[in-house]
Amino acid sequence: MIERLRARTIDIEAGDCKVILNKKDAEKMGLRSQGRVKVGSSHGHTVAIVELSETLVKEGEIGVLHRVVTNIKVREGEELTIVPSGRPKSIDHIREKLEGKELSEHAINEIIRDITDRRLSDIELSAYVCGVYARGMNLRETKDLTLAMIKTGETIEFDKHPVFDHHSIGGVPGNKITLLVVPIVAAAGLLIPKSSSRAISSAGGTADIFEVLADVTLSLSQIKSITEEIGGVISWGGAVNLAPSDDLIIRAEYPLRIDPYAQVLASVLSKKKAFGAEYLVMDIPVGPNTKVEDMEQGRKYARDFVTLGEEIGINVRCALSYGGQPVGEGVGPAIEAREALAALEGKEVPNSLIEKSVELAGMILEQGGLPEGRGKEKARKILSGGAALNKMKEIIQYQGGDPEVTSDDVPIGKYSQDILCNRDGYVGAINNRCVIEIVRAAGGPHDKGAGFILKKKRGDKVDKDELLYTIYSENKSNLKEAVKLANHLKPFFIEGMILEKHPSYRMV
Amino acid sequence: MIERLRARTIDIEAGDCKVILNKKDAEKMGLRSQGRVKVGSSHGHTVAIVELSETLVKEGEIGVLHRVVTNIKVREGEELTIVPSGRPKSIDHIREKLEGKELSEHAINEIIRDITDRRLSDIELSAYVCGVYARGMNLRETKDLTLAMIKTGETIEFDKHPVFDHHSIGGVPGNKITLLVVPIVAAAGLLIPKSSSRAISSAGGTADIFEVLADVTLSLSQIKSITEEIGGVISWGGAVNLAPSDDLIIRAEYPLRIDPYAQVLASVLSKKKAFGAEYLVMDIPVGPNTKVEDMEQGRKYARDFVTLGEEIGINVRCALSYGGQPVGEGVGPAIEAREALAALEGKEVPNSLIEKSVELAGMILEQGGLPEGRGKEKARKILSGGAALNKMKEIIQYQGGDPEVTSDDVPIGKYSQDILCNRDGYVGAINNRCVIEIVRAAGGPHDKGAGFILKKKRGDKVDKDELLYTIYSENKSNLKEAVKLANHLKPFFIEGMILEKHPSYRMV
Repeated sequence: MIERLRARTIDIEAGDCKVILNKKDAEKMGLRSQGRVKVGSSHGHTVAIVELSETLVKEGEIGVLHRVVTNIKVREGEELTIVPSGRPKSIDHIREKLEGKELSEHAINEIIRDITDRRLSDIELSAYVCGVYARGMNLRETKDLTLAMIKTGETIEFDKHPVFDHHSIGGVPGNKITLLVVPIVAAAGLLIPKSSSRAISSAGGTADIFEVLADVTLSLSQIKSITEEIGGVISWGGAVNLAPSDDLIIRAEYPLRIDPYAQVLASVLSKKKAFGAEYLVMDIPVGPNTKVEDMEQGRKYARDFVTLGEEIGINVRCALSYGGQPVGEGVGPAIEAREALAALEGKEVPNSLIEKSVELAGMILEQGGLPEGRGKEKARKILSGGAALNKMKEIIQYQGGDPEVTSDDVPIGKYSQDILCNRDGYVGAINNRCVIEIVRAAGGPHDKGAGFILKKKRGDKVDKDELLYTIYSENKSNLKEAVKLANHLKPFFIEGMILEKHPSYRMV
Repeated sequence: MIERLRARTIDIEAGDCKVILNKKDAEKMGLRSQGRVKVGSSHGHTVAIVELSETLVKEGEIGVLHRVVTNIKVREGEELTIVPSGRPKSIDHIREKLEGKELSEHAINEIIRDITDRRLSDIELSAYVCGVYARGMNLRETKDLTLAMIKTGETIEFDKHPVFDHHSIGGVPGNKITLLVVPIVAAAGLLIPKSSSRAISSAGGTADIFEVLADVTLSLSQIKSITEEIGGVISWGGAVNLAPSDDLIIRAEYPLRIDPYAQVLASVLSKKKAFGAEYLVMDIPVGPNTKVEDMEQGRKYARDFVTLGEEIGINVRCALSYGGQPVGEGVGPAIEAREALAALEGKEVPNSLIEKSVELAGMILEQGGLPEGRGKEKARKILSGGAALNKMKEIIQYQGGDPEVTSDDVPIGKYSQDILCNRDGYVGAINNRCVIEIVRAAGGPHDKGAGFILKKKRGDKVDKDELLYTIYSENKSNLKEAVKLANHLKPFFIEGMILEKHPSYRMV
């Protein structure tokens, strides 16, 4: 039964491909909310999801949303043909996962392709995420998922090899180590094209931090040419279309606060593989209020990242790191950029930042051929000898920044307030989540200068009225908000940042 | 951090409460797609779900959808206050269900209240449905779910008691038995206020069928007064606000083609309880292409309906009936209304229709006090003696129809085509789904006269070129479509329509 309805374009960018029908027309066609129709214009056909309305769209009309308008170039008032249409097969596969069945490679490919092409509604997308969360995926499924996520997006093919990478699964504020690891590794002559993210619920992603010093919105060809020329790059992953299904899947994970385990593995490794990585060192911070709360869970992640890496052709090593307090002393984009530069310049910075950075950079150098146990020492030399600073200046220059910038040049929030200790004692704990909230209240990561500098860390002895930390902001009212929020703090410290390395065997 | 943004009303009736923010504003506030904000106008506050846009909504603007506009009376261009807001606690309970945990009564109440108030997005609603599907609910949870669904809607309180009801869980075309059961039971002096549904994916619900003869859109007070006066009513459930969460939940079940078991039980019994039922006879058709595919599944439903009924105060008896082919000979609103009237008038109609109707009506009469095994005989007498016809005329009259209507008066589609058999043999099977599709292609249930009359049923001997069935339509082109579609048919037959009764013990 083909219906002809008059188009009424509705200028709203819904994520999925939708049309709105009058309830009476829908009833006549046997359609209900969330059903599908094939919509035809003079320019072609597209399949759309049906929403119903009693008043917005009159009988004989069809409301056409942004994506449909674009797909088939609908003109206002144009007569469109409407035929009830089948639903994507992938929905049946999603139901199978909810029922606890193992999905075939073909089924996983169909699901990821439909997600990428935005053929699934929010309801269907959510069902996929819930299925993986409730029922899990075995290694074979996780591998197929990872590969499906890679092939539905762009990839970078480097002409030089091997390509190294480094990734932290996140959750710890102040984790600016990428700004040390990348120049150390590149200065050692290895290729390390690093893609990084912006903050979503954190105080600042690596892309937000490095953007203080250079441009991070790079194209695939810029990433390739800079990496092949000078060894390293720090770019924003969101500027390129690698494993695009990931962002769409996160859209459903976020409101539900669920991170299906297989999806976390696939999300990380698909992006790395699409970015050309052949060797990867993973930082897995473990601690309360991070993504990984205990060592047992951290070891499971480490084992599975290594195994999944083998399956898709990435040599992965993992470090479980101490995630119980911020890394270094600064939190917030400009403050972290300044701290990282200071470390490269050889100025005094917290030991935790140096130790963690050279440990991880050293693991990469060992993947690159240094004997086991010699990487850290080599990394430390590259850092202390100034080679890493020179490489950083080169990277900043190639990414359009000022290579002569020094840590003292980086502007941070001009309004600040010191927070003093209200009694004598030892610092027992620092709540990462609380630090992040304070920085966000101060305006970060949007205001690059907003942030937080810790003067004491876990284990430190502290006297009454001694300075605990300082909050920075770019304007007075945000500072006031942040100070108001800062009634919850507790700090920490520990010496060796790396608790374990995985795998314990040496790569071949 | 409070933001002030200029309202731009967007006239689209999304199911949930949404606002659209420019990506830059959202980033500044640390919000992402599917997050929540508290939106304030001069008339009050409401919590809304965030969608993002880069072009539709400019920086400094907020797109406000229909439900938000209504909730807080937003004027175009008005400055609204926006504060990031927490998410409903019920989302955490939904996650617990996905993790396989048992939900408390309190948690279930919160979920159902948030669904009813449309506080959950499609993603969150879907997660609820998927959780119940993947993890199930025990009897205690199912009971709490049923009660939660009842108390979030209206209910009918009858002054006369007891109140009887009858329900079929559906899937079999031609199942017009309600038009016989209700007048038989009411003629016996019992109260039977029947709520019925319209077709969604079927060829016609009971409401569509009875609408041929009378008005089915009745208010709660009409339902109450007619029932108390004459004993019976056949109304459309959609006209009243009973257990409204059910329709909202179905919105997510439908595209996924999942019917979580506990949700089916709760859906049926919540509506019955809200309608005042104290005694209920359930018809559970079993057969291929119905909701219940085998006897084992049918018995489980029967047991669980009985047990859940006990928990919420409804005395339930179940009949597993033969659902392997259409009931009676006619399918389609007018054709079924005519067939039911003919049966009441004592004209010759298929035995299967009479047998099924008197069996089910008899079970209700036994619930009403007749000795076990005597109900069917009594029901048959009421039907054959004309008392049921007289009661039907009364019901039609009270519901605004013409009480003098006879089966011959009911107009059916004036265009028809006979379909002949193409070889000799016995009828082996009839595909219910196929019959429904043909009727829909012929224009039903929207065109009341569209339908299908079977001349042979399962087990019948049939000769080449003998008439198998006739398709009816109100217009030629639909008839042509339907005939074109009719290349798939096979018919069935069986003598005793009731395969089993549950529970086998007698009510006290």
